[in-house]
Amino acid sequence: MDKLSDLLPGKTSTDPEDLLCYGFDSSGLEAPPTAVVWPQDVTDVIKVIKYAYANRVPVIPRGAGTGMTGGAVPSKGAIVLSMEKMNRIIEIDEENLTVLVEPGVLNGKLQRELQRRRLFYPPDPASMNFCTIGGNVAENAGGARAVKYGVTKDYVLGLEAVLPDGRLIRTGVKTAKGVVGYDLTGLLVGSEGTLAVITKIRLKVLPMPQEVITLLVFFKELEKTGLAVTQIISEGIIPRTLEFLDKETIKAVENYKPIGLPKDIDAMLLIELDGVPSVITKDAEKISGICERLDGEIIMAENEAAREKLWEARRAVSPALFHISPTKINEDIVVPRSKLPEMLRILKGFSESSGIRIVNFGHAGDGNIHVNLMVDRNNKTEYEKAVKLVEEIFRATLELGGTISGEHGVGLTKKNYISMEIGPDELELMKKIKAVFDPTNILNPGKIFP
Amino acid sequence: MDKLSDLLPGKTSTDPEDLLCYGFDSSGLEAPPTAVVWPQDVTDVIKVIKYAYANRVPVIPRGAGTGMTGGAVPSKGAIVLSMEKMNRIIEIDEENLTVLVEPGVLNGKLQRELQRRRLFYPPDPASMNFCTIGGNVAENAGGARAVKYGVTKDYVLGLEAVLPDGRLIRTGVKTAKGVVGYDLTGLLVGSEGTLAVITKIRLKVLPMPQEVITLLVFFKELEKTGLAVTQIISEGIIPRTLEFLDKETIKAVENYKPIGLPKDIDAMLLIELDGVPSVITKDAEKISGICERLDGEIIMAENEAAREKLWEARRAVSPALFHISPTKINEDIVVPRSKLPEMLRILKGFSESSGIRIVNFGHAGDGNIHVNLMVDRNNKTEYEKAVKLVEEIFRATLELGGTISGEHGVGLTKKNYISMEIGPDELELMKKIKAVFDPTNILNPGKIFP
Repeated sequence: MDKLSDLLPGKTSTDPEDLLCYGFDSSGLEAPPTAVVWPQDVTDVIKVIKYAYANRVPVIPRGAGTGMTGGAVPSKGAIVLSMEKMNRIIEIDEENLTVLVEPGVLNGKLQRELQRRRLFYPPDPASMNFCTIGGNVAENAGGARAVKYGVTKDYVLGLEAVLPDGRLIRTGVKTAKGVVGYDLTGLLVGSEGTLAVITKIRLKVLPMPQEVITLLVFFKELEKTGLAVTQIISEGIIPRTLEFLDKETIKAVENYKPIGLPKDIDAMLLIELDGVPSVITKDAEKISGICERLDGEIIMAENEAAREKLWEARRAVSPALFHISPTKINEDIVVPRSKLPEMLRILKGFSESSGIRIVNFGHAGDGNIHVNLMVDRNNKTEYEKAVKLVEEIFRATLELGGTISGEHGVGLTKKNYISMEIGPDELELMKKIKAVFDPTNILNPGKIFP
Repeated sequence: MDKLSDLLPGKTSTDPEDLLCYGFDSSGLEAPPTAVVWPQDVTDVIKVIKYAYANRVPVIPRGAGTGMTGGAVPSKGAIVLSMEKMNRIIEIDEENLTVLVEPGVLNGKLQRELQRRRLFYPPDPASMNFCTIGGNVAENAGGARAVKYGVTKDYVLGLEAVLPDGRLIRTGVKTAKGVVGYDLTGLLVGSEGTLAVITKIRLKVLPMPQEVITLLVFFKELEKTGLAVTQIISEGIIPRTLEFLDKETIKAVENYKPIGLPKDIDAMLLIELDGVPSVITKDAEKISGICERLDGEIIMAENEAAREKLWEARRAVSPALFHISPTKINEDIVVPRSKLPEMLRILKGFSESSGIRIVNFGHAGDGNIHVNLMVDRNNKTEYEKAVKLVEEIFRATLELGGTISGEHGVGLTKKNYISMEIGPDELELMKKIKAVFDPTNILNPGKIFP
């Protein structure tokens, strides 16, 4: 790889320590690359891609490595193209409510810059303070606010990207609408770095909501949590977040960081409303009424400090889970919202019959459950049992009209399950689209497809 | 075509009168097909497609023929596949806020069925009482409410479709989220009937807004109309519609159907707010303040009858324009919202220098202008001048960061201009995607690509 470092002096490394640092993501999988490159601009990206194309070397575009399904884990002999230094916010167009960013800008950083101008970019994956907008676009990231505001794809207006042979393309528009030709932008969003390397992103933003109210509700029965969710939406109220934590999650949080959550509850909901103060106050009252009738115990926060306190439990979930077992098999199934109680019952049954601890939390408003199987990878019997259970969970999810991934994508960890959801003809179309963009299969090979 | 009528007895016609009726759309272009088929269900669609595939006959999927760019105009020797009898609303899932429909259901009919259940499907193309949801999906239709609620693609969750070789595919999900594999749903939306025949559509719907307020504002200066639009949005107010009509449009309306619009005005805005009564009342007051400071004269409607009265002018635009000249060259450019005044000035200049009457109206909130060149196709000199002017208008639009089509698509009428907006590499990707879906090029051939 000497030639690569000649091409991009000072921006390339083959130092074993760097290779280790860029060989994994949040899936827990790892495989060191043969080189890491930190492009500074699109010209650098094109140089790397042309080099890789000429030498038939795999290239793995990488945001911050917070992906859950191994999308950024290198394949054999690969160059990691770490986009972290292409992190400029190029333009904030306040008049037209759009921003132009490089892929390496952190989601949280963009949020803060917009906030200062009283603007708002809704997608907020749990990793928002670490993850990049480029990674969000590649994975079509969701977040807690998706129930009201949708996911990343709903905000991407246009892209600049480098094709696997080094050609630069521009897709989409700068305007609110545009219907000229096929939607290449939409195709690149969620393509998990397999079709092109994204180098610029034009996003739609919104005016900042006037005010936010946060509610925490404790329920004695899991069943009633699901009922509360359905009844809130049936009232015509769309909260901006509608998160739930089950009993096992609450226990894990309390063990990791005692917050003082009640011990005798079965589940809790974290509900956030945003909009005009008078309206959300009334909506909060309605929600309180619904939850009280379902024996929920309610805490309300109307200022930033109180709100932060209520979010404490939700934010502690991820680190807490890392403390309760050596391995966490982390899925993100979605079922139609009305099927949430049924799915939670099924998961409880699976846990009881298999003896495997299952911890559930997630975006109840979307029917999106983060299902965590707590095991030990070194305990072969247990681990294999858990892997089998994942398949059963996916089967039950699909039978209820759901999907096996609402946010995390397929990557490496789900590629052997993709055929459970996507039929052979649809998969064939996708593979042929991959071949249109990347005929020599150098861009993030081995991902998505079995 | 005897064999086709044997395959689908009673559902096929080669009667010259039928062929004439199904040989045109709202673009004004026409070319009779060799047969029309009215499938009743997906089995019928597959029969037609397999027949066409085996015999290499072009197939033109058709909604209601309200398209503006010739998307449904048959190519030589084609079979028209009229989806009008596949018009069932299969399911309205009130709990999960989704509906499942066949492609032939009318947009307006769906709107009314949902209204009864206090649900709401926002996309409202001007032709909503005649156009089909299938056509809306194929063209990614917009409408007056797009400024707040987005366009058709923002509501399509999943599709069932027949590939050009007769295989049935299912794309997308029934759930709020889903990121498994490439977004085939998004690719089919707006593909103008060139990739697959859509046979079922799963749409997201919303709770019905509590109330609507409509405002009509007359301006003495076009410039100030544009300023009003920008200032309203800068206030953080997103009305659900923000429509404008220029002086020429107002004149045309008054000549066609005297409504009593003031004669001395340069432009008018039709503004509609929806949501919680207390909020939209306040927003309406703020908007009134903004418009008054810009010397606007305001009329407000808070009930259905008064609202209908205010919409009268807007609804009369289309028929009125058909009365002022034999030919209307109808474009639907979009510029970034802040460039709207500049674009309107440019159009005025073009009209003055060319002597061609240009009538503009449209969705000011989106920067989407319906530009109408009023000419006579039989006056060769004038018509050719107008065609040249279209190219100049497109060039100016693109220079301002816009797009040559916000709602109507490319079809036949814009295919010779597509390269002005889409680069050769991007166009090549699109053509290859077309070949992936339709290798023998039987599905709506000759559209989109030059």
